[in-house]
Amino acid sequence: MRRYDLALIGFGGVNRALAELIAERGDELADELGFALRVVAITDLRAGSLVDVEGIDLAPLLATGPGELAFAGMEGGNADPRNEWVIREVPADIVAEATFTNPADGEPAVSHVRWALEAGKHVCTTNKGPVALRGRELKELAVRHGVSIEFEGAVLSGTPVLRTAERLLSGLRITGVEGIMNGTSNFILGRVEDGADFEAAVKEAQDLGYAEADPTADVEGHDVQLKVMILANEVLGADLRPEDVFREGISGITAEDIKDAVDKGLRWKLVGSATRRSDGGVDARVAPMALPADHPLAGIAGPLNAVAFRTDLLGTVTVSGPGAGRIETAYALLSDIIAIHQRHANDAAASSGHVVEEALHG
Amino acid sequence: MRRYDLALIGFGGVNRALAELIAERGDELADELGFALRVVAITDLRAGSLVDVEGIDLAPLLATGPGELAFAGMEGGNADPRNEWVIREVPADIVAEATFTNPADGEPAVSHVRWALEAGKHVCTTNKGPVALRGRELKELAVRHGVSIEFEGAVLSGTPVLRTAERLLSGLRITGVEGIMNGTSNFILGRVEDGADFEAAVKEAQDLGYAEADPTADVEGHDVQLKVMILANEVLGADLRPEDVFREGISGITAEDIKDAVDKGLRWKLVGSATRRSDGGVDARVAPMALPADHPLAGIAGPLNAVAFRTDLLGTVTVSGPGAGRIETAYALLSDIIAIHQRHANDAAASSGHVVEEALHG
Repeated sequence: MRRYDLALIGFGGVNRALAELIAERGDELADELGFALRVVAITDLRAGSLVDVEGIDLAPLLATGPGELAFAGMEGGNADPRNEWVIREVPADIVAEATFTNPADGEPAVSHVRWALEAGKHVCTTNKGPVALRGRELKELAVRHGVSIEFEGAVLSGTPVLRTAERLLSGLRITGVEGIMNGTSNFILGRVEDGADFEAAVKEAQDLGYAEADPTADVEGHDVQLKVMILANEVLGADLRPEDVFREGISGITAEDIKDAVDKGLRWKLVGSATRRSDGGVDARVAPMALPADHPLAGIAGPLNAVAFRTDLLGTVTVSGPGAGRIETAYALLSDIIAIHQRHANDAAASSGHVVEEALHG
Repeated sequence: MRRYDLALIGFGGVNRALAELIAERGDELADELGFALRVVAITDLRAGSLVDVEGIDLAPLLATGPGELAFAGMEGGNADPRNEWVIREVPADIVAEATFTNPADGEPAVSHVRWALEAGKHVCTTNKGPVALRGRELKELAVRHGVSIEFEGAVLSGTPVLRTAERLLSGLRITGVEGIMNGTSNFILGRVEDGADFEAAVKEAQDLGYAEADPTADVEGHDVQLKVMILANEVLGADLRPEDVFREGISGITAEDIKDAVDKGLRWKLVGSATRRSDGGVDARVAPMALPADHPLAGIAGPLNAVAFRTDLLGTVTVSGPGAGRIETAYALLSDIIAIHQRHANDAAASSGHVVEEALHG
């Protein structure tokens, strides 16, 4: 059976959840999917780095509490994350990148992805930054090195949005795409609709773990802006930069606006959209919209997210599901690994792949 | 470029829309999809049959009005549909079956599909009957003959429901599936919610072309029952018969029931569902349910349909889109042909496939 060796870059919630999946369900997944997974390297800003090319024993790491993990002193461990060295030098087939993104330049994730692709390693990432800001360049780099970059988790965590467009809508002309792609702002709007004060709703979202300490990226539409760029570029073939995407957040919506809308049967939503113009270009924007009750996105409430594809032959097809969550996002990485396997299972196993000689289960 | 020769069985709205797609957009689709399509046979209960192994000129056929078409007297034409002969004997790669289904035994569609598979031809069908009632047998028959049977259009027309489960949810445990899968009953419920009388709403659905002259199959849940069987069998691996699926339609819902529900913030929907039991079996049912407003299916209004998959790692993922329509259902056939191509493009072209030697576009 084919086996893929993984380097996990960033060991916060998402990659830790992926490690849990592999530790708890690896054999079962191997039976179902036809390949095995093994973690050979982990790096983390706080914990440092850990390398074992024979496979890291995940159980003891996963038994530690949040923030307790320190790789220094372990065999193959180091207090320094050594990201570049691990990504470039440790023999791994796939680099699972789940660190963080500076929304201005996508770093350090962009560099992590670039190093991996240059080293001939496949990449799966949940990071919006590299995909939104450097997607075209990184995909070209992957092609040049004969590897893949997959990033379903950059939009709506594991909910299969990008792959629906890529795989299930062939033969259709997709004329536009719009979505509710930020659960925090959607939750806040819903609470204000229920009568809560805006500031109290933000606080509630923070208490529930939806919103960051600084809620700006969620509330002012920066997060959705990056996702709109990804959809415009991936689904509509555009090549947009942040300045091409008009952005307005929800902080300007008053309780009165919301009450007026409810009275008219409308619901305010923060909508990200990209539409093909008649000249072939793509208009993209993030803005609050008061949607009629029968709009496919009007019923998307709370932390649920959704993306609607407008097509010529099929009208509007909408996919809804979780927009965030550590396990949901770890599943995005697993779905990326499955996609890499489907594309590359028949590649020569010589240079970067491994074939497990013995049967795994007897 | 690879070319597939098609036999269209049934030339009502759906296969006629497929023929329009091929006639109007064939070259463009070939560029995008990497294969060409040619129609070599058409049969129809009323029009008879028409065969031209060099490719039927579709334009004159598509220029006729509804009901005007008669193949008798044309070269290769016959007043008799000659379905068995055409399906078995005319050299075609793919049989597109879009006739009708007797919901009791799935005929004549079951025989059409069986003849095609026995003759080593791939099948795409929009017919629920063969899939719901004989799916397992027909899929085994396809495997024995080295061909594929595809049927995305049997549930929610071209909306990619079955393929979402098959291709985009790998690695998840799907624990249940539920959907609004009949646009007519959904439209009627919506109109009654708006204050219309039940009988008047049925009449309105008929006038709009949603409901048949005899609305029983839609209103009493028979149509949804077959779709639930397909979902249970395909997505949850069950092997259900109609008598295994509890069925209750919407005719017993009173205007008062609906008013009470609206007062409580609930919306009545005709829901088809299949759920995996703890013993591994599958419970399936069709019944009206009063859904809370934040249920993923509550906002699915009018002719829109939706199917929600309950999963372990990803929670609920819902796909919504058109549930019917001639072009929407013709796209289901096109998506099936794409799936057949993806699976069989590398099969030996000798026996049933054709490779167009010359470049199609210069």
